[in-house]
Amino acid sequence: MFLTVMTVAEALVALSPARRSAVSHIAPALGSVPARDVRAGEQLPAHARATVDGFAVRAVDTYAASETLPAFLELTGAVVMGRAPQGEVGPGAAMAIPTGGLLPHGADAVVMVEHTSEPMPGHVELMRRVAPGDGVLHPGEEAQPDDVLAPAGRPLRAADLGLLAAAGITEIAAHARPRVGIVSTGDEVVPGATPELSPGQVRDACAPALAGLVREAGGEPVLRGIVPDDAAALEHVLAGAVGEDDMVVVSAGSSVGARDLTANVAARLGEVVCHGLAVRPGKPTLLADCGGVPLVGLPGNPRSALVVFRLVGMPLVRVVGGVTAPPAVAPVRARLARDVPSAAGRLDVVQASLDDGVATPLFGSSALLGPMVRADGWFCVAEADLGLASGSDVDVWLYV
Amino acid sequence: MFLTVMTVAEALVALSPARRSAVSHIAPALGSVPARDVRAGEQLPAHARATVDGFAVRAVDTYAASETLPAFLELTGAVVMGRAPQGEVGPGAAMAIPTGGLLPHGADAVVMVEHTSEPMPGHVELMRRVAPGDGVLHPGEEAQPDDVLAPAGRPLRAADLGLLAAAGITEIAAHARPRVGIVSTGDEVVPGATPELSPGQVRDACAPALAGLVREAGGEPVLRGIVPDDAAALEHVLAGAVGEDDMVVVSAGSSVGARDLTANVAARLGEVVCHGLAVRPGKPTLLADCGGVPLVGLPGNPRSALVVFRLVGMPLVRVVGGVTAPPAVAPVRARLARDVPSAAGRLDVVQASLDDGVATPLFGSSALLGPMVRADGWFCVAEADLGLASGSDVDVWLYV
Repeated sequence: MFLTVMTVAEALVALSPARRSAVSHIAPALGSVPARDVRAGEQLPAHARATVDGFAVRAVDTYAASETLPAFLELTGAVVMGRAPQGEVGPGAAMAIPTGGLLPHGADAVVMVEHTSEPMPGHVELMRRVAPGDGVLHPGEEAQPDDVLAPAGRPLRAADLGLLAAAGITEIAAHARPRVGIVSTGDEVVPGATPELSPGQVRDACAPALAGLVREAGGEPVLRGIVPDDAAALEHVLAGAVGEDDMVVVSAGSSVGARDLTANVAARLGEVVCHGLAVRPGKPTLLADCGGVPLVGLPGNPRSALVVFRLVGMPLVRVVGGVTAPPAVAPVRARLARDVPSAAGRLDVVQASLDDGVATPLFGSSALLGPMVRADGWFCVAEADLGLASGSDVDVWLYV
Repeated sequence: MFLTVMTVAEALVALSPARRSAVSHIAPALGSVPARDVRAGEQLPAHARATVDGFAVRAVDTYAASETLPAFLELTGAVVMGRAPQGEVGPGAAMAIPTGGLLPHGADAVVMVEHTSEPMPGHVELMRRVAPGDGVLHPGEEAQPDDVLAPAGRPLRAADLGLLAAAGITEIAAHARPRVGIVSTGDEVVPGATPELSPGQVRDACAPALAGLVREAGGEPVLRGIVPDDAAALEHVLAGAVGEDDMVVVSAGSSVGARDLTANVAARLGEVVCHGLAVRPGKPTLLADCGGVPLVGLPGNPRSALVVFRLVGMPLVRVVGGVTAPPAVAPVRARLARDVPSAAGRLDVVQASLDDGVATPLFGSSALLGPMVRADGWFCVAEADLGLASGSDVDVWLYV
């Protein structure tokens, strides 16, 4: 039945699609993936600025200053936010300056207001000495022209949006959210909006759940409806999806017949690189390369489909969407509440609730979504392991 | 200057806003927050189904079956996907059934096809015995009427969308993404799209970065523009925001004067509950309750603003958006590459790059966004600690 059964790691090497989503010029947005390094066009900041509230001075005038013997300087003006300073700071002089204010000519340091006093109008006493550069943000300290502000292939984060705005960058070359076609199959499957089921019918749970995971991975789901278990109908829909989308996912049906049908159609549309995954649940998974567009045939059980899509589908969505940076997720270390049996040679994905550092596995038929819905996350029993003993440490990946 | 300085934990207790975003009936979507428990209206599944490909039988007919002495049953038909079975399974009989097929009357178990053979047409041999219920998903095993399918206050995940679709639930009462008004202040601040800066001007980096964090927390940013350092202008804009939005954030300006201005306006619009946070960077933070709407006054430095918004702003966005479940995020344990000094009584938030389990702190003026942009995450030096030694274990929270 399964010509090529692979581990998840092998499958992700075997299916290395050429496809990348379209690149266009857009305003920087959270999660956008730059197609090229975004570089500074100008020096940031352009001029020296104060990083504290205080007084702009020549540092050399403060070298003898102390709590007991303050330096006494003439106050020759005040810097106003957003304007070029009026005048400059000569020897023995100081100008008041707010945080962010432009450093006046002549000055090379700012003394914090906390270390000063104004004993009489027009003068200021400094109780601390400062070195040149103290309290000052230097020109180019944030960025020099041509510095990389945001690297290609890493989705933009909030801080990136701030830095790009500071640099006046209003447009970047970025990958579109990859379009992921989602095809449901099965004579028994009816739309979720069907109020009353006839005996034998089930509502389509896969498509909306997969759409959620596609969005989580940064893609744009394209719901392509429900196709009956018919080779011609399936080929028509899949050929259309492969032609228009950046990636295609099909719930392959849960029966052997339905899986064979998907495998045959996939073989006609491209090259099948994997006929099964050494994963439970999720073995009946098919991976194909259709002229650069990855096609993922998932098991028919919604939970198996979601487990497999998380392991191999979401990484593919990222690849196709131009992401080259590894995802920033980390598991929680927890203590296993009971024994978990497994078989060697396959990866077991186990749903778990997490309470105060203890992971309790949630079992149940892979035809049930319930254990996944009630879970806080999931952990793996590795291919080489024959099971895990109660009390072992496991890495639980949290559902967000 | 700071009348009430609080820890982050104290601040989140002190500011407990009454506001919740509007509730309306919508189609379930990723991240939607149910305002009430979503309950099943019907039994799921309604009928018993096969969980494997094989043969529907009466378990009692298989009790003597083994590899060496198979049970020999009459094949009386085949269940077709999506239809009610034609006929029933009598004593000594079996019907072929695909995974997901409806269990025919009379049958109480399904034997996997792998444990059978068909030595002659019209008959099947079983090499394994099964117990009643084997290979069968029972009516109501996924859900009974009135079972909670998705709890109030926990953002919907992909698996939830699947389960709700399976249950035919096309509409839920959910909180709207909370509207978070973002107000930038400062005579020196100009829009990010300004191509050429006059001396002393800076582009607004805070607003787009905060908008990113608001989205990350599930909110909808409402950009309310840049207000000069003028009490009447600020009060006008903030009063409008408090009247229309579920939460309001204002970059309070970096100078003492700008901060005082924001504090005075906030005191006129509501009750100021916190005048400063024991956090570095981020001390000049103001928290107010304006008739139930939380108002957060942030430091003017973009990086300080983002640090504080992550610590207190994002939790408030979730609260106001109806989230009661804790966020599902976990830090990575890493080894510190060098000493990190700190002062007792304040929380230090340190940006860090992460490489192979080693966290390298990235220092630099809090006026710079660069260290945060280059960081993989951040860690804290707790209020009670005087610093962390090189080689210590730290929990690094990753930027996604």
